[in-house]
Amino acid sequence: MEPKLQVALDNISLKSAMESIREIGHIIDVIEVGTILHVAEGLEPVRCLRALYPEKIILADIKGADAGSLLAKQCYGAGANWMTVICCAEIPTMAGMLNVAKEFGEDRDVQIELYGDWTWEQAQKWKEAGLKQVVYHRSRDAQAAGKSWGSEDLEKIGRLCDMGFKITVTGGLTVEDIKLFKDYPIYCFIAGRSIRDAESPEQAAKSFKAEIKKYWS
Amino acid sequence: MEPKLQVALDNISLKSAMESIREIGHIIDVIEVGTILHVAEGLEPVRCLRALYPEKIILADIKGADAGSLLAKQCYGAGANWMTVICCAEIPTMAGMLNVAKEFGEDRDVQIELYGDWTWEQAQKWKEAGLKQVVYHRSRDAQAAGKSWGSEDLEKIGRLCDMGFKITVTGGLTVEDIKLFKDYPIYCFIAGRSIRDAESPEQAAKSFKAEIKKYWS
Repeated sequence: MEPKLQVALDNISLKSAMESIREIGHIIDVIEVGTILHVAEGLEPVRCLRALYPEKIILADIKGADAGSLLAKQCYGAGANWMTVICCAEIPTMAGMLNVAKEFGEDRDVQIELYGDWTWEQAQKWKEAGLKQVVYHRSRDAQAAGKSWGSEDLEKIGRLCDMGFKITVTGGLTVEDIKLFKDYPIYCFIAGRSIRDAESPEQAAKSFKAEIKKYWS
Repeated sequence: MEPKLQVALDNISLKSAMESIREIGHIIDVIEVGTILHVAEGLEPVRCLRALYPEKIILADIKGADAGSLLAKQCYGAGANWMTVICCAEIPTMAGMLNVAKEFGEDRDVQIELYGDWTWEQAQKWKEAGLKQVVYHRSRDAQAAGKSWGSEDLEKIGRLCDMGFKITVTGGLTVEDIKLFKDYPIYCFIAGRSIRDAESPEQAAKSFKAEIKKYWS
């Protein structure tokens, strides 16, 4: 299956997010309300994007760590299809979100955000608890500190695929990076600034879609 | 030093948070905008609480995991004194927040939220990176799953104190729990529902303050 293209709206205001989505909303598959935008505006961006794009997948990247079912009711209630949980959250937190997702319907799901030193033992527990999606990152700050994609990343991604997880890949991805992952059944690629800050965001989004199609279709 | 009393406004709307704070704002030391309230309303509650309580410590519990300096600019810019970072965030993320805190002034700080399986090796790295505050939790979902305070918690808290961290303790705390910690130089206790949902939140907050004074003054 062709990986989806997700764009992270890490804007610092709703207005700025509207400007970003205007040119690319019809091209991309998943619209992410980034943590930065949530901190700025709460869930209002999810409600506005749901109104604008009734058929798109909308992700609330809140990186929940606790109070899973309450946060899930907020996110899904606002119209999000997917929401994120941080990898160091406890299993009951993740399970709480997943239970609420099931109540809202099968288009709702939870993604585990892999940050820092998560372990394979944890990954096994996530699997057993019924979690299906993980997001593999180079963190924004790690990128700034000069960390690049490497064989270690690809090995971990491969092992997560083998465990049956749907993998989203993110972290300063450029069009040129896409082919690095061609041997894996990636579920979704997230781009942020490389699309939002491009001279033509529309063209940048199309280039990502074309590059993905080249290797997976 | 007498531990501070912090109340977590884990309300689901700004209006409801205003109702909660009305009776207790003058009694407590630290006003926390909880993650749940941030998800609902973004940073507007921080701005409103700063306007209402210019002299109180206001904490933005956003549990940041990435993009530390950007999130810090948002939180401190809105008027928060303290903000939280999740323990599985990478060191550059924490350092990014800390750098911005320093720019804003010495009343600004970063708290590390201890969730899940953090390690002493990580704690040593936090210390070396200049982080001063940690929040020791029983998670809301772990509480619901029946986990209580135990000697293991107290040993970890003691060791964190010995490392020189200022420790905040939280997780379904009742007035009766306070004495469990009497042998430690706790920096701050967080109560949430046990004050907000009390018949008289004002009386409940006063009882916490009195109990803290009994053991630490």
